[in-house]
Amino acid sequence: MGIRVGIVGYGNLGRGVRKAIQQNEDLELVAVFTRRDPALMEPEEGIRFVHIDLAPDYRDKIDVMLMCGGSATDLPEQTPWMAEWFNTVDSFDTHAKIPEFYETVDAVARKSNHVSVISTGWDPGLFSMNRLLAESILPQGHAYTFWGKGVSQGHSDAIRRVPGVKAGVQYTIPVEGVVQRIRAGETPELETRDKHLRHCYVVAEQGADRAAIEKAIVSMPNYFADYDTKVTFVTEEELQKEHGGLPHGGFVIRSGITGNGTKQIIEFGLQLESNPEFTASVLVAYARAAYRLHREGQSGAKTVFDIPLGHLSPKSSEELRKHLL
Amino acid sequence: MGIRVGIVGYGNLGRGVRKAIQQNEDLELVAVFTRRDPALMEPEEGIRFVHIDLAPDYRDKIDVMLMCGGSATDLPEQTPWMAEWFNTVDSFDTHAKIPEFYETVDAVARKSNHVSVISTGWDPGLFSMNRLLAESILPQGHAYTFWGKGVSQGHSDAIRRVPGVKAGVQYTIPVEGVVQRIRAGETPELETRDKHLRHCYVVAEQGADRAAIEKAIVSMPNYFADYDTKVTFVTEEELQKEHGGLPHGGFVIRSGITGNGTKQIIEFGLQLESNPEFTASVLVAYARAAYRLHREGQSGAKTVFDIPLGHLSPKSSEELRKHLL
Repeated sequence: MGIRVGIVGYGNLGRGVRKAIQQNEDLELVAVFTRRDPALMEPEEGIRFVHIDLAPDYRDKIDVMLMCGGSATDLPEQTPWMAEWFNTVDSFDTHAKIPEFYETVDAVARKSNHVSVISTGWDPGLFSMNRLLAESILPQGHAYTFWGKGVSQGHSDAIRRVPGVKAGVQYTIPVEGVVQRIRAGETPELETRDKHLRHCYVVAEQGADRAAIEKAIVSMPNYFADYDTKVTFVTEEELQKEHGGLPHGGFVIRSGITGNGTKQIIEFGLQLESNPEFTASVLVAYARAAYRLHREGQSGAKTVFDIPLGHLSPKSSEELRKHLL
Repeated sequence: MGIRVGIVGYGNLGRGVRKAIQQNEDLELVAVFTRRDPALMEPEEGIRFVHIDLAPDYRDKIDVMLMCGGSATDLPEQTPWMAEWFNTVDSFDTHAKIPEFYETVDAVARKSNHVSVISTGWDPGLFSMNRLLAESILPQGHAYTFWGKGVSQGHSDAIRRVPGVKAGVQYTIPVEGVVQRIRAGETPELETRDKHLRHCYVVAEQGADRAAIEKAIVSMPNYFADYDTKVTFVTEEELQKEHGGLPHGGFVIRSGITGNGTKQIIEFGLQLESNPEFTASVLVAYARAAYRLHREGQSGAKTVFDIPLGHLSPKSSEELRKHLL
C-alpha cells in the first residue's frame, strides 16, 4: 500500500498536487477537502470531494495532508488545526511570519505526535536550501537571489486595483546585465532597482485615460515605485493568449572566496513553465519525507533544513548510494 | 571551545582544508597527520605535523578527522582505520566502489560509535544532492551532468605518459551548443562525444615527433578516443603561466514535465577557480555535521543524502529559519 494523502484546498496549487501525485506510484490520493459544498464541485474522475469540517473522520485513512491554501489567511488557521489529526506539508511563504508560524505548528504537532513540514516549495524551500548550503561552504562571500522571469500574483492583483484597468499581468524580470556581472565574478552591492525590472501588460477599460493608468502603476508605493517599471497596453485577447500562464523561476548565486582570494561561484536556478505545478511537485516529495519521519518516531514542525534529502526519494538508501551518489 | 579537527594527508586537498578552517571560527586545527617524517615537513606557522601512526594518541584531543588522501589507495585503507578512533569526513570518489566502501566504513564506525561522512565534495557530493533532489521533485524527466570547464587530473596524467611529452594539462569542456539546447527545453539523447570536448595543452620534448604525439593522444582508449580532442602545443613557460591553476566546475540539469506537458528545469552549477580548495570547503562544512550527528548519538557511515542541511551551518535552527528560509 502506498502513502495515503489528502489535499486541503483546491485552487491552482491543489490541482497541481493532484497531477503530481499521479506521477508518483507510491502515493495515493484519498480525498480533496474543501470549504465549498462538495456537491457543487465539478466532478473529476477518481476524486472524492469532502467538506473540510469532516477531515478528522479521515484520521485513520490518510497519512499526510497536503495543505494547498494561501499564506495570508488559510494556512495560519488550517495547518495547526490539521496537525492535530494528520502529518502535514505546507508552503507557508510569508517570510516575516515564519518563526511565529513554526512555533504554533510545532506545539500542536509535538502534542499530537505528528510531523508538520512547513514552508516548503521553491522560495521558501529549494532556494532556502541553496542559500544555506552555499553560505555554509563559502562563509566569506556575497549572496544574491533573483526571481523571474515570472508572473507575480501580488503585483498583478495590484495592477487590477488601479481605476480604469480591466485586466493585467505583471512579470518580474532579473536585470540581465547584473546577473552576467555576478556570474563573471563581480560582487556588486545592489539596490532593489538594480536587480529586477517589472513589466506590466494591461488591458484598459474602454475610454480610460492610459497616461493616468501608467502613472498610477509606476508610482505605486511598495509595489512599483522602487523599480524600473514598464507598462504595455494590450487587448483582452492578447492578454489571454500571450500572458495566460503562470511561469516563474529565478536563481540563487553565491560568489565566495577561499584561500588567498580564489573565486568560487555556486548557482542554483529554476525555469518553470508553471509555478503552481512545480510548487506542488516539491510538496509531494516532502509528503514522502513527512511520512517517513513520522514512522521513525519524530514529531513537531520541520523545515527543509531539518530533513535529509534521501527521505524525498522513493528509492532505498542502497539504490541512492549506488546510482545517484 | 570549537570543534577540534585533524587533517590526514597534506597535498592540495589538505592545504585547502587548512585554509578553509581559517574561514570558520567554530573550527580549530589540532594537527596535520602525514606518512612523511614530520621533522622534514616545511614548517608552517600554527601547524603541528605528526606522523600518521601516532594518530590514535590524539583520540581525546580531536573531534573530527578530515581525510585528505586519494581515493585509489589512501582512503580505502585510511578511512576505516581512522574511524576506529575518530569521526571522519572524506571525499572518496571512485563511484563504482562507493557501495563497498560504505559497507566497510559503516561496520567500523558503528562498532566504535563514530560518524564517518563518506564521499562528500562536489561530485560525489553537491552534484549528487542535486541529482537526487531534482529527480525526487520531477520524477518524469531527463538528467544531465556536465563537468568543466576544468582540469582533469587523470587525463593530464595520461597525456604525460605519452612518449615525447614533457608536460601537459587537459581541460574537460562542456559542449556549449548542447547545454543551450537543454536549457531551452530540449531533452536530447546524448552520446559521450556530444557532451564534452577535451582540450590538451602539451609541451613536447625537444625534437619529438609532434604529429605522432597528437595521434597517440587523440586515439588513446578510455581517455580520449570517445571524444573530440584538440591538442595544442605550447612552451613550458606558457603552460606554467596560463595553465598552472586547477579550475573546475560543471552543472547538473534536470528537465522535467509536470501536469499536461508543462516544462520545468532545475539547474545547479559551479564555477571554481580552485577545485581542491572548494572540495576542502565542502569537507569542512561536513566536519561540522559529523560532529553534531555524533553528539546526537548517531554512528556509522553517512552520505550527503543522510544529513539535514541545517547541520552544515554554524547558525542555530532559529537563526536559520529567521534569516535563510
